[in-house]
Amino acid sequence: MQFSSSLLENAVNEFAKLPGIGKKTALRLVLHLLRQQELEVSQFSEIIARMRSEIKFCQRCFNVSDGDICSICSNSMRKQEIICVVENIRDVIAIESTQQYSGTYHVLGGIISPLDGIGPDQLNIESLVHRIQKEKTEELIFALNPTIQGDTTIYYIQKKIQPPGIRITTIARGIAFGGELEYADEMTLARSLQNRLPIEKYVSG
Amino acid sequence: MQFSSSLLENAVNEFAKLPGIGKKTALRLVLHLLRQQELEVSQFSEIIARMRSEIKFCQRCFNVSDGDICSICSNSMRKQEIICVVENIRDVIAIESTQQYSGTYHVLGGIISPLDGIGPDQLNIESLVHRIQKEKTEELIFALNPTIQGDTTIYYIQKKIQPPGIRITTIARGIAFGGELEYADEMTLARSLQNRLPIEKYVSG
Repeated sequence: MQFSSSLLENAVNEFAKLPGIGKKTALRLVLHLLRQQELEVSQFSEIIARMRSEIKFCQRCFNVSDGDICSICSNSMRKQEIICVVENIRDVIAIESTQQYSGTYHVLGGIISPLDGIGPDQLNIESLVHRIQKEKTEELIFALNPTIQGDTTIYYIQKKIQPPGIRITTIARGIAFGGELEYADEMTLARSLQNRLPIEKYVSG
Repeated sequence: MQFSSSLLENAVNEFAKLPGIGKKTALRLVLHLLRQQELEVSQFSEIIARMRSEIKFCQRCFNVSDGDICSICSNSMRKQEIICVVENIRDVIAIESTQQYSGTYHVLGGIISPLDGIGPDQLNIESLVHRIQKEKTEELIFALNPTIQGDTTIYYIQKKIQPPGIRITTIARGIAFGGELEYADEMTLARSLQNRLPIEKYVSG
Protein backbone atom coordinates (compact mmCIF):
# COMPACT_ATOMS: atom_id res chain seq x y z
CA MET A 1 0.00 0.00 0.00
CA GLN A 2 1.32 3.44 -1.00
CA PHE A 3 0.43 6.48 1.10
CA SER A 4 0.97 10.12 0.24
CA SER A 5 0.81 11.12 3.92
CA SER A 6 3.07 9.75 6.64
CA LEU A 7 0.51 10.73 9.31
CA LEU A 8 -2.04 8.48 7.59
CA GLU A 9 0.52 5.72 7.05
CA ASN A 10 1.59 5.68 10.71
CA ALA A 11 -2.01 5.53 11.91
CA VAL A 12 -2.77 2.63 9.54
CA ASN A 13 0.35 0.80 10.71
CA GLU A 14 -0.65 1.22 14.37
CA PHE A 15 -4.11 -0.23 13.75
CA ALA A 16 -2.65 -3.07 11.69
CA LYS A 17 -0.64 -4.17 14.76
CA LEU A 18 -3.89 -5.20 16.47
CA PRO A 19 -4.79 -8.90 16.24
CA GLY A 20 -7.05 -9.80 13.31
CA ILE A 21 -6.74 -6.34 11.73
CA GLY A 22 -5.05 -6.34 8.33
CA LYS A 23 -3.83 -3.35 6.36
CA LYS A 24 -7.10 -2.92 4.45
CA THR A 25 -9.26 -3.02 7.57
CA ALA A 26 -6.82 -0.68 9.32
CA LEU A 27 -7.16 1.81 6.46
CA ARG A 28 -10.96 1.59 6.65
CA LEU A 29 -10.87 2.32 10.40
CA VAL A 30 -8.44 5.24 10.01
CA LEU A 31 -10.48 6.80 7.20
CA HIS A 32 -13.55 6.45 9.41
CA LEU A 33 -11.78 8.33 12.22
CA LEU A 34 -10.66 10.95 9.70
CA ARG A 35 -14.32 11.68 8.95
CA GLN A 36 -15.17 12.14 12.65
CA GLN A 37 -14.89 15.39 14.60
CA GLU A 38 -11.44 16.09 16.02
CA LEU A 39 -12.91 16.10 19.54
CA GLU A 40 -14.35 12.60 19.13
CA VAL A 41 -11.05 11.19 17.91
CA SER A 42 -9.09 12.79 20.74
CA GLN A 43 -11.66 11.32 23.14
CA PHE A 44 -11.19 7.87 21.58
CA SER A 45 -7.44 8.20 21.90
CA GLU A 46 -7.58 9.47 25.50
CA ILE A 47 -9.92 6.72 26.70
CA ILE A 48 -7.62 4.04 25.28
CA ALA A 49 -4.49 5.54 26.83
CA ARG A 50 -6.23 6.10 30.17
CA MET A 51 -7.52 2.54 30.21
CA ARG A 52 -3.99 1.17 29.89
CA SER A 53 -2.36 3.54 32.37
CA GLU A 54 -5.02 3.60 35.10
CA ILE A 55 -6.49 0.11 35.09
CA LYS A 56 -5.55 -2.07 38.07
CA PHE A 57 -5.81 -5.71 38.94
CA CYS A 58 -7.86 -6.59 42.00
CA GLN A 59 -5.49 -7.57 44.83
CA ARG A 60 -7.85 -10.32 45.92
CA CYS A 61 -9.10 -11.98 42.73
CA PHE A 62 -6.83 -10.51 39.99
CA ASN A 63 -9.77 -9.38 37.90
CA VAL A 64 -9.42 -6.00 36.13
CA SER A 65 -10.53 -3.22 38.39
CA ASP A 66 -10.77 0.55 38.67
CA GLY A 67 -9.47 0.41 42.25
CA ASP A 68 -7.34 -1.86 44.44
CA ILE A 69 -10.29 -4.19 45.08
CA CYS A 70 -12.71 -4.91 42.21
CA SER A 71 -16.42 -4.15 42.24
CA ILE A 72 -17.28 -7.85 42.61
CA CYS A 73 -15.02 -8.46 45.63
CA SER A 74 -16.22 -5.28 47.34
CA ASN A 75 -19.91 -6.03 46.72
CA SER A 76 -21.50 -7.26 49.96
CA MET A 77 -24.49 -8.63 48.02
CA ARG A 78 -22.27 -11.31 46.46
CA LYS A 79 -21.49 -14.57 48.22
CA GLN A 80 -17.87 -13.98 49.24
CA GLU A 81 -17.53 -17.61 50.39
CA ILE A 82 -17.93 -19.02 46.88
CA ILE A 83 -14.94 -18.70 44.51
CA CYS A 84 -15.13 -19.43 40.79
CA VAL A 85 -11.66 -20.19 39.39
CA VAL A 86 -11.22 -18.99 35.78
CA GLU A 87 -8.36 -18.74 33.33
CA ASN A 88 -8.69 -15.07 32.34
CA ILE A 89 -10.68 -11.83 32.44
CA ARG A 90 -12.68 -12.81 29.36
CA ASP A 91 -14.12 -15.79 31.27
CA VAL A 92 -15.22 -13.46 34.09
CA ILE A 93 -17.03 -11.26 31.55
CA ALA A 94 -18.67 -14.32 29.95
CA ILE A 95 -19.93 -15.67 33.29
CA GLU A 96 -21.03 -12.23 34.52
CA SER A 97 -23.02 -11.79 31.31
CA THR A 98 -25.17 -14.82 32.18
CA GLN A 99 -26.30 -12.93 35.33
CA GLN A 100 -26.68 -16.33 37.02
CA TYR A 101 -23.64 -16.30 39.30
CA SER A 102 -23.53 -14.38 42.56
CA GLY A 103 -20.21 -15.54 44.04
CA THR A 104 -16.68 -14.18 43.53
CA TYR A 105 -13.85 -15.09 41.15
CA HIS A 106 -10.20 -15.93 41.13
CA VAL A 107 -8.42 -15.21 37.85
CA LEU A 108 -5.44 -17.55 37.37
CA GLY A 109 -3.98 -15.60 34.46
CA GLY A 110 -3.55 -18.77 32.39
CA ILE A 111 -3.45 -22.54 32.91
CA ILE A 112 -0.59 -24.93 33.58
CA SER A 113 0.94 -25.79 30.21
CA PRO A 114 4.51 -27.17 30.37
CA LEU A 115 4.78 -27.18 26.55
CA ASP A 116 4.26 -23.39 26.52
CA GLY A 117 6.58 -23.02 29.50
CA ILE A 118 3.78 -22.03 31.86
CA GLY A 119 4.17 -23.60 35.30
CA PRO A 120 2.17 -23.09 38.52
CA ASP A 121 4.56 -20.31 39.64
CA GLN A 122 3.55 -18.01 36.78
CA LEU A 123 -0.12 -18.28 37.73
CA ASN A 124 -2.10 -16.81 40.64
CA ILE A 125 -2.31 -20.19 42.42
CA GLU A 126 -0.32 -19.39 45.57
CA SER A 127 -2.61 -16.43 46.23
CA LEU A 128 -5.66 -18.67 45.79
CA VAL A 129 -4.32 -21.11 48.40
CA HIS A 130 -3.64 -18.24 50.80
CA ARG A 131 -7.07 -16.81 50.15
CA ILE A 132 -8.79 -20.10 50.99
CA GLN A 133 -6.73 -20.47 54.19
CA LYS A 134 -7.56 -16.93 55.26
CA GLU A 135 -11.20 -16.65 54.20
CA LYS A 136 -14.16 -18.85 55.13
CA THR A 137 -14.43 -20.38 51.66
CA GLU A 138 -17.29 -22.85 51.29
CA GLU A 139 -17.11 -23.78 47.63
CA LEU A 140 -14.53 -23.68 44.85
CA ILE A 141 -16.01 -23.88 41.34
CA PHE A 142 -13.57 -24.63 38.52
CA ALA A 143 -14.69 -23.02 35.26
CA LEU A 144 -11.71 -23.96 33.07
CA ASN A 145 -11.71 -25.17 29.49
CA PRO A 146 -12.00 -28.97 29.22
CA THR A 147 -8.49 -29.60 27.90
CA ILE A 148 -5.62 -31.66 29.31
CA GLN A 149 -4.06 -28.40 30.56
CA GLY A 150 -7.31 -27.42 32.24
CA ASP A 151 -7.62 -30.80 33.94
CA THR A 152 -3.95 -30.67 35.02
CA THR A 153 -4.53 -27.26 36.56
CA ILE A 154 -7.59 -28.48 38.47
CA TYR A 155 -5.66 -31.52 39.71
CA TYR A 156 -2.68 -29.40 40.84
CA ILE A 157 -4.78 -26.84 42.71
CA GLN A 158 -6.87 -29.58 44.34
CA LYS A 159 -3.71 -31.29 45.67
CA LYS A 160 -2.34 -27.95 46.93
CA ILE A 161 -5.46 -27.13 48.89
CA GLN A 162 -6.32 -30.41 50.61
CA PRO A 163 -9.35 -28.74 52.08
CA PRO A 164 -11.19 -30.06 55.07
CA GLY A 165 -14.84 -29.41 54.33
CA ILE A 166 -14.57 -27.29 51.20
CA ARG A 167 -16.85 -28.28 48.35
CA ILE A 168 -14.98 -28.48 45.05
CA THR A 169 -17.02 -28.54 41.83
CA THR A 170 -16.57 -27.97 38.12
CA ILE A 171 -19.02 -26.54 35.62
CA ALA A 172 -21.07 -29.14 33.72
CA ARG A 173 -19.97 -30.48 30.36
CA GLY A 174 -22.58 -31.64 27.92
CA ILE A 175 -24.37 -30.98 24.68
CA ALA A 176 -24.76 -27.24 24.15
CA PHE A 177 -28.22 -25.75 23.67
CA GLY A 178 -28.85 -25.76 19.95
CA GLY A 179 -26.05 -28.32 19.51
CA GLU A 180 -26.76 -31.41 17.43
CA LEU A 181 -26.30 -34.76 19.13
CA GLU A 182 -24.88 -36.55 16.11
CA TYR A 183 -22.10 -33.99 15.65
CA ALA A 184 -21.00 -33.97 19.31
CA ASP A 185 -17.60 -35.55 19.99
CA GLU A 186 -17.52 -38.90 21.85
CA MET A 187 -15.96 -37.41 25.00
CA THR A 188 -18.67 -34.79 25.41
CA LEU A 189 -21.45 -37.24 24.64
CA ALA A 190 -20.02 -39.84 27.05
CA ARG A 191 -19.68 -37.29 29.88
CA SER A 192 -23.13 -36.00 29.10
CA LEU A 193 -24.53 -39.52 29.55
CA GLN A 194 -22.54 -40.23 32.72
CA ASN A 195 -23.65 -36.99 34.33
CA ARG A 196 -27.29 -37.32 33.31
CA LEU A 197 -29.82 -35.43 35.39
CA PRO A 198 -33.25 -36.41 36.70
CA ILE A 199 -35.70 -34.79 34.30
CA GLU A 200 -37.31 -32.66 37.05
CA LYS A 201 -33.97 -31.08 37.86
CA TYR A 202 -33.30 -30.32 34.20
CA VAL A 203 -36.64 -28.62 33.70
CA SER A 204 -36.39 -26.58 36.89
CA GLY A 205 -32.82 -25.47 36.02
CA MET B 1 -21.69 -7.77 28.37
CA GLN B 2 -20.98 -7.11 32.03
CA PHE B 3 -17.74 -5.37 33.05
CA SER B 4 -16.31 -5.00 36.52
CA SER B 5 -14.19 -2.02 35.41
CA SER B 6 -15.57 1.16 33.87
CA LEU B 7 -12.15 1.94 32.35
CA LEU B 8 -12.33 -1.35 30.45
CA GLU B 9 -15.98 -0.83 29.56
CA ASN B 10 -15.37 2.66 28.14
CA ALA B 11 -12.45 1.45 26.05
CA VAL B 12 -14.52 -1.43 24.65
CA ASN B 13 -17.38 0.96 23.85
CA GLU B 14 -15.00 3.30 22.00
CA PHE B 15 -13.63 0.49 19.84
CA ALA B 16 -17.15 -0.83 19.20
CA LYS B 17 -18.05 2.53 17.60
CA LEU B 18 -15.68 1.75 14.72
CA PRO B 19 -17.31 0.29 11.58
CA GLY B 20 -17.38 -3.50 11.44
CA ILE B 21 -16.16 -3.87 15.04
CA GLY B 22 -18.68 -5.53 17.37
CA LYS B 23 -18.53 -5.76 21.14
CA LYS B 24 -16.69 -9.09 21.17
CA THR B 25 -14.01 -7.94 18.72
CA ALA B 26 -13.69 -4.67 20.64
CA LEU B 27 -13.07 -6.61 23.84
CA ARG B 28 -10.43 -8.73 22.13
CA LEU B 29 -8.63 -5.61 20.88
CA VAL B 30 -8.78 -3.88 24.28
CA LEU B 31 -7.49 -6.98 26.11
CA HIS B 32 -4.67 -7.13 23.57
CA LEU B 33 -3.73 -3.51 24.33
CA LEU B 34 -3.94 -4.29 28.05
CA ARG B 35 -1.20 -6.88 27.57
CA GLN B 36 1.09 -4.39 25.79
CA GLN B 37 3.55 -2.05 27.48
CA GLU B 38 2.06 1.24 28.65
CA LEU B 39 4.46 3.13 26.37
CA GLU B 40 3.27 1.26 23.29
CA VAL B 41 -0.37 1.96 24.05
CA SER B 42 0.25 5.66 24.67
CA GLN B 43 2.13 5.72 21.35
CA PHE B 44 -0.83 4.07 19.60
CA SER B 45 -3.18 6.61 21.14
CA GLU B 46 -0.96 9.59 20.31
CA ILE B 47 -0.45 8.59 16.67
CA ILE B 48 -4.22 8.30 16.16
CA ALA B 49 -4.95 11.67 17.78
CA ARG B 50 -2.09 13.37 15.90
CA MET B 51 -3.27 11.91 12.59
CA ARG B 52 -6.71 13.46 13.06
CA SER B 53 -5.50 16.85 14.29
CA GLU B 54 -2.53 17.42 11.98
CA ILE B 55 -3.55 15.84 8.70
CA LYS B 56 -4.36 18.27 5.88
CA PHE B 57 -5.97 18.06 2.51
CA CYS B 58 -3.85 19.07 -0.49
CA GLN B 59 -5.02 22.48 -1.72
CA ARG B 60 -4.54 21.39 -5.30
CA CYS B 61 -5.88 17.82 -5.51
CA PHE B 62 -7.67 17.33 -2.15
CA ASN B 63 -5.72 14.19 -1.38
CA VAL B 64 -4.67 13.68 2.26
CA SER B 65 -1.35 15.36 2.91
CA ASP B 66 1.13 16.20 5.65
CA GLY B 67 1.50 19.73 4.26
CA ASP B 68 -0.50 22.24 2.22
CA ILE B 69 0.49 20.52 -1.03
CA CYS B 70 0.66 16.71 -1.12
CA SER B 71 3.74 14.69 -1.96
CA ILE B 72 2.32 13.71 -5.37
CA CYS B 73 1.52 17.29 -6.45
CA SER B 74 4.91 18.56 -5.27
CA ASN B 75 6.85 15.75 -6.95
CA SER B 76 8.50 17.08 -10.11
CA MET B 77 9.05 13.52 -11.39
CA ARG B 78 5.31 13.08 -11.84
CA LYS B 79 3.51 14.25 -14.96
CA GLN B 80 1.68 17.30 -13.63
CA GLU B 81 -0.25 17.71 -16.89
CA ILE B 82 -2.16 14.43 -16.42
CA ILE B 83 -4.99 14.40 -13.89
CA CYS B 84 -6.73 11.24 -12.70
CA VAL B 85 -10.18 12.04 -11.27
CA VAL B 86 -11.17 9.73 -8.39
CA GLU B 87 -14.00 9.55 -5.88
CA ASN B 88 -12.00 9.31 -2.65
CA ILE B 89 -8.64 8.85 -0.95
CA ARG B 90 -8.98 5.09 -0.96
CA ASP B 91 -8.98 5.12 -4.77
CA VAL B 92 -5.73 7.13 -4.76
CA ILE B 93 -4.12 4.54 -2.48
CA ALA B 94 -5.38 1.70 -4.73
CA ILE B 95 -4.00 3.30 -7.90
CA GLU B 96 -0.71 4.30 -6.22
CA SER B 97 -0.27 0.72 -5.06
CA THR B 98 -0.19 -0.49 -8.68
CA GLN B 99 2.95 1.68 -9.18
CA GLN B 100 1.86 2.09 -12.81
CA TYR B 101 0.59 5.66 -12.76
CA SER B 102 2.88 8.67 -12.83
CA GLY B 103 0.42 11.55 -13.21
CA THR B 104 -1.47 13.51 -10.54
CA TYR B 105 -4.93 13.14 -8.99
CA HIS B 106 -8.03 15.12 -8.24
CA VAL B 107 -10.15 13.76 -5.38
CA LEU B 108 -13.82 14.68 -5.83
CA GLY B 109 -14.82 13.65 -2.30
CA GLY B 110 -17.79 11.65 -3.60
CA ILE B 111 -19.89 11.36 -6.75
CA ILE B 112 -23.06 13.09 -7.87
CA SER B 113 -25.95 11.20 -6.29
CA PRO B 114 -29.24 13.16 -6.08
CA LEU B 115 -30.90 10.35 -4.10
CA ASP B 116 -28.31 10.79 -1.32
CA GLY B 117 -28.58 14.56 -1.59
CA ILE B 118 -25.09 14.94 -3.07
CA GLY B 119 -25.00 17.53 -5.83
CA PRO B 120 -22.03 18.96 -7.78
CA ASP B 121 -21.64 21.81 -5.25
CA GLN B 122 -20.67 19.44 -2.44
CA LEU B 123 -17.88 17.96 -4.54
CA ASN B 124 -14.50 19.33 -5.59
CA ILE B 125 -15.64 19.92 -9.16
CA GLU B 126 -15.37 23.72 -9.34
CA SER B 127 -11.74 23.49 -8.22
CA LEU B 128 -11.08 20.89 -10.93
CA VAL B 129 -12.47 23.23 -13.61
CA HIS B 130 -10.32 26.09 -12.28
CA ARG B 131 -7.30 23.82 -12.14
CA ILE B 132 -7.67 22.81 -15.80
CA GLN B 133 -8.12 26.45 -16.89
CA LYS B 134 -5.04 27.53 -14.95
CA GLU B 135 -2.68 24.60 -15.62
CA LYS B 136 -1.50 23.13 -18.90
CA THR B 137 -3.57 19.96 -18.49
CA GLU B 138 -3.15 17.48 -21.34
CA GLU B 139 -5.26 14.55 -20.21
CA LEU B 140 -8.10 13.92 -17.79
CA ILE B 141 -8.52 10.26 -16.77
CA PHE B 142 -11.78 9.35 -15.05
CA ALA B 143 -11.29 6.46 -12.59
CA LEU B 144 -14.80 6.33 -11.13
CA ASN B 145 -16.88 3.29 -10.29
CA PRO B 146 -19.03 2.14 -13.25
CA THR B 147 -22.39 3.06 -11.75
CA ILE B 148 -25.11 5.44 -12.95
CA GLN B 149 -23.82 7.99 -10.42
CA GLY B 150 -20.28 7.56 -11.73
CA ASP B 151 -21.41 8.04 -15.33
CA THR B 152 -23.51 11.07 -14.34
CA THR B 153 -20.49 12.63 -12.66
CA ILE B 154 -18.31 12.06 -15.71
CA TYR B 155 -20.99 13.56 -17.98
CA TYR B 156 -21.43 16.62 -15.72
CA ILE B 157 -17.72 17.36 -15.45
CA GLN B 158 -17.20 16.84 -19.18
CA LYS B 159 -19.95 19.38 -19.97
CA LYS B 160 -18.47 21.85 -17.46
CA ILE B 161 -15.00 21.74 -18.98
CA GLN B 162 -15.65 21.91 -22.70
CA PRO B 163 -11.94 21.59 -23.27
CA PRO B 164 -10.22 22.62 -26.45
CA GLY B 165 -7.57 20.00 -27.01
CA ILE B 166 -7.71 18.10 -23.73
CA ARG B 167 -7.80 14.34 -23.97
CA ILE B 168 -10.54 12.83 -21.79
CA THR B 169 -10.37 9.10 -21.04
CA THR B 170 -11.76 6.58 -18.59
CA ILE B 171 -10.13 3.47 -17.17
CA ALA B 172 -10.92 0.25 -19.05
CA ARG B 173 -13.78 -1.99 -18.01
CA GLY B 174 -13.52 -5.69 -18.68
CA ILE B 175 -13.11 -9.15 -17.23
CA ALA B 176 -10.82 -9.01 -14.18
CA PHE B 177 -7.68 -11.15 -14.10
CA GLY B 178 -8.69 -14.42 -12.48
CA GLY B 179 -12.34 -13.65 -13.21
CA GLU B 180 -14.45 -16.28 -14.92
CA LEU B 181 -16.09 -15.37 -18.21
CA GLU B 182 -19.31 -17.28 -17.58
CA TYR B 183 -19.96 -15.44 -14.32
CA ALA B 184 -19.33 -11.95 -15.67
CA ASP B 185 -22.41 -9.74 -15.97
CA GLU B 186 -23.70 -8.92 -19.47
CA MET B 187 -22.74 -5.25 -19.27
CA THR B 188 -19.12 -5.98 -18.43
CA LEU B 189 -18.87 -8.74 -21.03
CA ALA B 190 -20.49 -6.56 -23.71
CA ARG B 191 -18.13 -3.63 -22.97
CA SER B 192 -15.22 -5.99 -22.87
CA LEU B 193 -16.11 -7.20 -26.38
CA GLN B 194 -16.73 -3.71 -27.75
CA ASN B 195 -13.41 -2.43 -26.42
CA ARG B 196 -11.40 -5.46 -27.52
CA LEU B 197 -7.67 -4.93 -28.04
CA PRO B 198 -5.28 -6.14 -30.73
CA ILE B 199 -3.50 -9.12 -29.19
CA GLU B 200 -0.03 -7.48 -29.47
CA LYS B 201 -1.20 -4.57 -27.37
CA TYR B 202 -2.63 -6.88 -24.73
CA VAL B 203 0.57 -8.89 -24.41
CA SER B 204 2.81 -5.82 -24.27
CA GLY B 205 0.52 -4.17 -21.71
